[in-house]
Amino acid sequence: MARRLVVVGGVAAGLSAAGRARRLQRDLEVTVFERTGFCSYTACGLPYYISHVIGDHADLVMRTPQELAREGVDVRVRHEVSEIDTANRRIRVSDLESGSESTVGYDELVIATGASPIAPVPGTGRDGSFTVRTIEDALAIDAWIASRRPRRGVIVGGGYIGLEMAEALGARGIATTILEREADILPLVDPDVAAEVVAELRRHGVEVVTGAAVEEVEGDGRVTAVRAGGQAWAAEIVIMGIGVRPDVAVPRAAGIPIGPLGAISVDPRMRTGVDGVWAAGDCVQTRHLLHDGPAYIPLGTTANKQGRIAGANIGGLHEEFGGVVGTSVLKVCDLEVGRTGLTLRQAQAAGLDAAAGTVEHKSRAAYYPGGRPITVKIVAERGTGRLLGAQLAGGEGVAKRLDVIAAALHGAATVDDVAGFDLSYAPPFAPVWDPLLLAARQAEKAL
Amino acid sequence: MARRLVVVGGVAAGLSAAGRARRLQRDLEVTVFERTGFCSYTACGLPYYISHVIGDHADLVMRTPQELAREGVDVRVRHEVSEIDTANRRIRVSDLESGSESTVGYDELVIATGASPIAPVPGTGRDGSFTVRTIEDALAIDAWIASRRPRRGVIVGGGYIGLEMAEALGARGIATTILEREADILPLVDPDVAAEVVAELRRHGVEVVTGAAVEEVEGDGRVTAVRAGGQAWAAEIVIMGIGVRPDVAVPRAAGIPIGPLGAISVDPRMRTGVDGVWAAGDCVQTRHLLHDGPAYIPLGTTANKQGRIAGANIGGLHEEFGGVVGTSVLKVCDLEVGRTGLTLRQAQAAGLDAAAGTVEHKSRAAYYPGGRPITVKIVAERGTGRLLGAQLAGGEGVAKRLDVIAAALHGAATVDDVAGFDLSYAPPFAPVWDPLLLAARQAEKAL
Repeated sequence: MARRLVVVGGVAAGLSAAGRARRLQRDLEVTVFERTGFCSYTACGLPYYISHVIGDHADLVMRTPQELAREGVDVRVRHEVSEIDTANRRIRVSDLESGSESTVGYDELVIATGASPIAPVPGTGRDGSFTVRTIEDALAIDAWIASRRPRRGVIVGGGYIGLEMAEALGARGIATTILEREADILPLVDPDVAAEVVAELRRHGVEVVTGAAVEEVEGDGRVTAVRAGGQAWAAEIVIMGIGVRPDVAVPRAAGIPIGPLGAISVDPRMRTGVDGVWAAGDCVQTRHLLHDGPAYIPLGTTANKQGRIAGANIGGLHEEFGGVVGTSVLKVCDLEVGRTGLTLRQAQAAGLDAAAGTVEHKSRAAYYPGGRPITVKIVAERGTGRLLGAQLAGGEGVAKRLDVIAAALHGAATVDDVAGFDLSYAPPFAPVWDPLLLAARQAEKAL
Repeated sequence: MARRLVVVGGVAAGLSAAGRARRLQRDLEVTVFERTGFCSYTACGLPYYISHVIGDHADLVMRTPQELAREGVDVRVRHEVSEIDTANRRIRVSDLESGSESTVGYDELVIATGASPIAPVPGTGRDGSFTVRTIEDALAIDAWIASRRPRRGVIVGGGYIGLEMAEALGARGIATTILEREADILPLVDPDVAAEVVAELRRHGVEVVTGAAVEEVEGDGRVTAVRAGGQAWAAEIVIMGIGVRPDVAVPRAAGIPIGPLGAISVDPRMRTGVDGVWAAGDCVQTRHLLHDGPAYIPLGTTANKQGRIAGANIGGLHEEFGGVVGTSVLKVCDLEVGRTGLTLRQAQAAGLDAAAGTVEHKSRAAYYPGGRPITVKIVAERGTGRLLGAQLAGGEGVAKRLDVIAAALHGAATVDDVAGFDLSYAPPFAPVWDPLLLAARQAEKAL
């Protein structure tokens, strides 16, 4: 009888695992159960569908179940796994269309259940209140805007998805307010970098209110306002962008070990410690190379890598996931902003004696047309000179400059090393002293 | 009496050394002699002045002698140093305007004489034949084109300056042919990557002829043709872009040690081995981190870094130049192309058992507008998996992706390391699997 691989979750991690394992073992019988109606979709593209930068939601789907079937991967959408029986190596599955239940046996199981948005305030069930996680969410928001033509919107939470959705609502002609509980939006960067993002949002007509802890989404059936700090912000549409939490209820009930951060604990090969059970993606915690401890940073890039590694190991190879350095990037209107490693605030909170150097410079040679200002902040450790992280914000050239620092973090570089990096130069692409090199020199001085 | 620093050469390396030393020691008496009429200029910007992307040649000058004087750096342009007397710590200088000569003593001497274009064929003295190295060169070419209105041009040499000048002549409405002696243009990349550049040039109407060893620039006073391989290529303007050689005649005569590559040999602190004599920039050979031997790769980025380090050491600090990994980048029409580390050809020539993986992918998420194709070729060593280099060509996002690999080379990464890099992702900036990661995976397979 063929060896059976069952995968719970048919998006980034799940399908990466399924595909890799199947390519390595052509006789593997692979079945993937996906709770939503779509598999292999990119959650990161959803705001661009809502903003109409992308016209067809089919473009958000990398591969359809039909295409995956031709690769030997049997994907069942609208199927929810409700129970895992690790002792008998079988799962319980509900067909959400028909309501029928069935039991499916496995030899190897990959848990790639992902994460779900949290919405910890009353009233989020009202008509006009949305989260943004699945293609269904995006279709619902798009249709709702088209039919109801809301004029005022509130985004709850000034994180990545909140900012992308603020831009998307703005593109649909909706006057938008971001309500952020903390003193600054975008806690993944330091306040000085976040201030550049706030300025950009305001330039584009988005209102940003910080220190506003949302108490309730108000309305009478339909949303009319969001109450925060005793004040009411009128809104016909509300997007909850507070964050996500790993979907681990079913694995937890099955006795799969959950780590201190509330996500599944895995080893570098993506094994859960339970025989035949692997996990990958937004439902697992991962190793952070900067502090060598566990971190929960749910991102599609990591999910894809981890899925591939789980698949490789199921397929008979020995591969390990090295860990993350905490890289992420975002476009906010005409500003690119991102971070890698630790922010100064994170480094100090972790007890490190850290300092930062910041420069603002042009993205190209001063005399070459089209350059845009770019801010680079580099964080390093006093005493050792160890590079700890970087944050960038600017009009162009942010994402891949971040990746230069990400590569340096993977290589355990010092700021002196970075200041000496042999980076490329031609007038259309950079000044002769790239802003990264100048920021590294500033960081050297700050140490 | 104040300590005297004399610098020979007032461009990248020389002025970096002068400025850094002066900032560290405010009582240092700093004099810089520059042979041309301009100091502190960017040679890399010259093609963009000739193409009229940059309107004013003053934009190519970072700091004027007046500005430098205010920083305590006395720059004498049109002054040529004809002799160095290391025993008595003095130099002989000619004022090229007045013809007068003088002797100047020094406590510390920085040789930053740079490099000069080579033009090893008869007839390059004819009217209409140019090299591109100084602002004077660019002014002369610009004026010549404006007054003579040439219709046909030949570029001798398909290297960086040749390609940039082909684009510049094209922008001025001149039908241009590149004559390259070797089988491929752009020997700094492998032939498959060079082929993309040839296609781009041809798309923009530039004729590319390889295997054409130039024998003579023909004409009767004025240039009429370039003869190569017995064939004559009609041209009213000829740009010699064959390469440069270090300007070391004067230091060589003074007994300053010249290395095996024909450039000045320096230690990591930029000392020549002769008491009080330092050297930096295009006149020195430098350490290549990939083979740990000397290399001659004259670039402004390296010159600036080396000059700063010479200045730091003169100013009482202890700083060392770590070496280069051979990074360079170029815009050719709408194509960005560059390399870092070793090409496959270079690696194999160095006796390494190397292989390469190449991918062509989009620069952004497939569904996000504006993405351009990008080719990534990653070279690595069999057995060890050691990353050896990368070459990229594409419509956007090439330069800083090269720098990610440059950072990885500085960190002595393997291709497995690169394939696991935690790179940034958002749909406007990259696919979820960055082409760098995909190319690293291809390289893994090729090993």
